[in-house]
Amino acid sequence: MTDTIIGSAAKEIVIGFERPFVIIGERINPTGRKTLAAEMKEGDYSRVEADARAQIAAGAHALDVNAGIPLADEPRILAEVIQLVQSITDTPLCIDSSIVAALQAGLEVYQGKALVNSVTGEEEQLEQVMPLVKKHEAAVVAISNDETGISEDPDVRFEVAKRIVERAADFGIKACDVVVDPLVMPVGAVNSAGQQALKLIHRLRTELKVNTTCGASNISFGLPNRDGVNGAFLSMAIHSGMTSAIANPLHREVVNATLGADVLMGRDPDCARWIKRFREPPVTGEGAARGRRQSRRRRA
Amino acid sequence: MTDTIIGSAAKEIVIGFERPFVIIGERINPTGRKTLAAEMKEGDYSRVEADARAQIAAGAHALDVNAGIPLADEPRILAEVIQLVQSITDTPLCIDSSIVAALQAGLEVYQGKALVNSVTGEEEQLEQVMPLVKKHEAAVVAISNDETGISEDPDVRFEVAKRIVERAADFGIKACDVVVDPLVMPVGAVNSAGQQALKLIHRLRTELKVNTTCGASNISFGLPNRDGVNGAFLSMAIHSGMTSAIANPLHREVVNATLGADVLMGRDPDCARWIKRFREPPVTGEGAARGRRQSRRRRA
Repeated sequence: MTDTIIGSAAKEIVIGFERPFVIIGERINPTGRKTLAAEMKEGDYSRVEADARAQIAAGAHALDVNAGIPLADEPRILAEVIQLVQSITDTPLCIDSSIVAALQAGLEVYQGKALVNSVTGEEEQLEQVMPLVKKHEAAVVAISNDETGISEDPDVRFEVAKRIVERAADFGIKACDVVVDPLVMPVGAVNSAGQQALKLIHRLRTELKVNTTCGASNISFGLPNRDGVNGAFLSMAIHSGMTSAIANPLHREVVNATLGADVLMGRDPDCARWIKRFREPPVTGEGAARGRRQSRRRRA
Repeated sequence: MTDTIIGSAAKEIVIGFERPFVIIGERINPTGRKTLAAEMKEGDYSRVEADARAQIAAGAHALDVNAGIPLADEPRILAEVIQLVQSITDTPLCIDSSIVAALQAGLEVYQGKALVNSVTGEEEQLEQVMPLVKKHEAAVVAISNDETGISEDPDVRFEVAKRIVERAADFGIKACDVVVDPLVMPVGAVNSAGQQALKLIHRLRTELKVNTTCGASNISFGLPNRDGVNGAFLSMAIHSGMTSAIANPLHREVVNATLGADVLMGRDPDCARWIKRFREPPVTGEGAARGRRQSRRRRA
């Protein structure tokens, strides 16, 4: 039984075994979103605000915030975006950057216990990121690769994750504050990527006994009907022991797969959340509107 | 590695470990379909023919055929329906009745190796059904309940399944010709039904080493957005080892959950089937038309 608590100033959520699955909204990320990237670079965060509200309305339990824009002042933008999002919602945030200075800037303005995304098993990274995580009493996403790269052997990735958890302890960070990302590769490129991820998630849950998360939509990169693959993967990963994912709550398949898996794993007593969600009229506002537009487009 | 081969006069399919998941179309069944029941009773099988064509167009690998109509001559109707369906398609059939005389009438006209649905662990049933299965060299669906009823303990249901496989051997029927139905109960009524089914499927696959099937949509009986629960359940059940299901291939969630699980379990090399299915325009004809109508209705 491992609980990872993250929170804002006003609200805490728990990622944990036997807990309902946690969806970390993936939308606030300029990667591959030219308009958003241009707006964020100019300090126009209106779309960020809309994405935050939409994902929360659609059922996100936390929000990932990423400001990775080429040639932009990522630390400043990330800090500004975090302050903006925290000014409109008490939903906990996942501070997402590959640049340590940006993680630091984000942590310095963040109110509450953040989830830092991410640290790898590379020693230089560990020595830069872990002290920040400890200083701000945050939790951290640990990606199971290291100096040797990303192994296609889930057992090698397990050993990397194990070492990150051990190194975290050296910095005074408890295992329950390390959420391991098994690193999901596109099944269209690596045919065994699904089996690798599911096997690794199971070992992380049963042997290392840590919480897990992943960028779920990576699994379907390059394939048609991506949401179909993403949904199947999420349900199977939850069955393997995954306790959270960075995903798009505006996609019906993501909601069905995760809330449905909670029902089937016995984490939705009397199916109360499922019935409430689907008996009531759909959430209104941009979240629902965009969800429907995307659904229609996918089915057109 | 257990392969269950069923077939028509012209075509064989294999239900097996490491094989692509087998969808047995559930639509040719008057239960809860008043119009179809009335038509079948009058000998009008036009809707049966349309349901057969639609399910095959939507990707069914086999078709379940049920003629359970109150106060009707079920053996005659079932035999007529089987002859009609076999006259228009070489897709293998699952002969579905709780009445032994109907199973017998169906087997007598069936061309090929049928899947008989079903026999329970009740001794009287075993002694009536198993000789028929053996005589016609068919395969049989074994439902894991007996004189004591349906246990909520998956380990008790496992022992019932084990005994049916042993009794089948007494009648000269090989274990590979017994496909066990773990008996999926509605999770809305029995909150642990999902966990029970998943645990039992895993034991049937890893310990008894038999193929499995189930009426997948039972899991969502009484809940809203049933297809969402059905899809999550199918992906999780395939991950647990389930190798076939009686389900509705016209429902997008069923297709996504099963073809998606095949992709993620490494049973769709290079994702070729997935890409072919979703890159091409949707199947034309009634199957596609009805699938779309149902999709819209569910989302209305």
